[in-house]
Amino acid sequence: MNSDVGHDQRFFCAALAEAEQGLAEGGVPIGAALVVDGRVVATGRNRRVQQGDPIAHGEMDCLRQAGRRRDYRRATLYTTLSPCMMCAGTIAQFGIPRVVVGENTSFGGNEAFLRSRGVEVLVLDDARCQELMRRFQEEHPDVWAEDIAE
Amino acid sequence: MNSDVGHDQRFFCAALAEAEQGLAEGGVPIGAALVVDGRVVATGRNRRVQQGDPIAHGEMDCLRQAGRRRDYRRATLYTTLSPCMMCAGTIAQFGIPRVVVGENTSFGGNEAFLRSRGVEVLVLDDARCQELMRRFQEEHPDVWAEDIAE
Repeated sequence: MNSDVGHDQRFFCAALAEAEQGLAEGGVPIGAALVVDGRVVATGRNRRVQQGDPIAHGEMDCLRQAGRRRDYRRATLYTTLSPCMMCAGTIAQFGIPRVVVGENTSFGGNEAFLRSRGVEVLVLDDARCQELMRRFQEEHPDVWAEDIAE
Repeated sequence: MNSDVGHDQRFFCAALAEAEQGLAEGGVPIGAALVVDGRVVATGRNRRVQQGDPIAHGEMDCLRQAGRRRDYRRATLYTTLSPCMMCAGTIAQFGIPRVVVGENTSFGGNEAFLRSRGVEVLVLDDARCQELMRRFQEEHPDVWAEDIAE
């Protein structure tokens, strides 16, 4: 494992911990972390259920927690699940140049959009994230369908 | 003025009122309203300054205020300014089929993305919205640059 991957795995754990907390709260188990200059500046998780907030996807909640910033161009956003079009559009709008994704088998499809906007996308194929989503999709198919507007 | 345009102008006033309230609060003067089945179900405004929240663009705040819904496919989103890529991505993700935009001279460029996703986009070229943005951009160029991540 090279040094970059080691860093990514370490930062990714902050996103995964948020996803696990979301599941424990009865929420959609998707978490995110924003890293700037080698430091986690904010984490977040999907809070649709907890706050009744349809825009509170993990990535969005993380960016809200991070507050007003001017350093997005030095940031990497870690997320346990591949970004939906809301979150992908936000990453492009904010000018975040790099996204590390836990997995894209439970949901995906916006990687090409991100890359077309110059965003580097790394997919970890993390089995823990897949298992979290599998459990959630089985137990709450209605909330999952709502969260991806299906 | 045909009946549809009359309805649009009436609903649009709810978005414009939010933009004006935003300016009065020292915020970014952009407002939005969500209409479902001929009824305003929520309004919102940019609250970056008021709440220190970078994702609280007018459209996003409005969708947050509207809460968890399953009726986006019968909705029209009114917004005083052409949606940024975050808001355009959200409109596409939520499956909102129609957007009425106050103006797209102060900011724009995502109309083609929206139309490519099947969203109908109507631009009103509203002089009141242009004037609100002109005043704000002159008085707070730094906050405006921050809001569009430039």
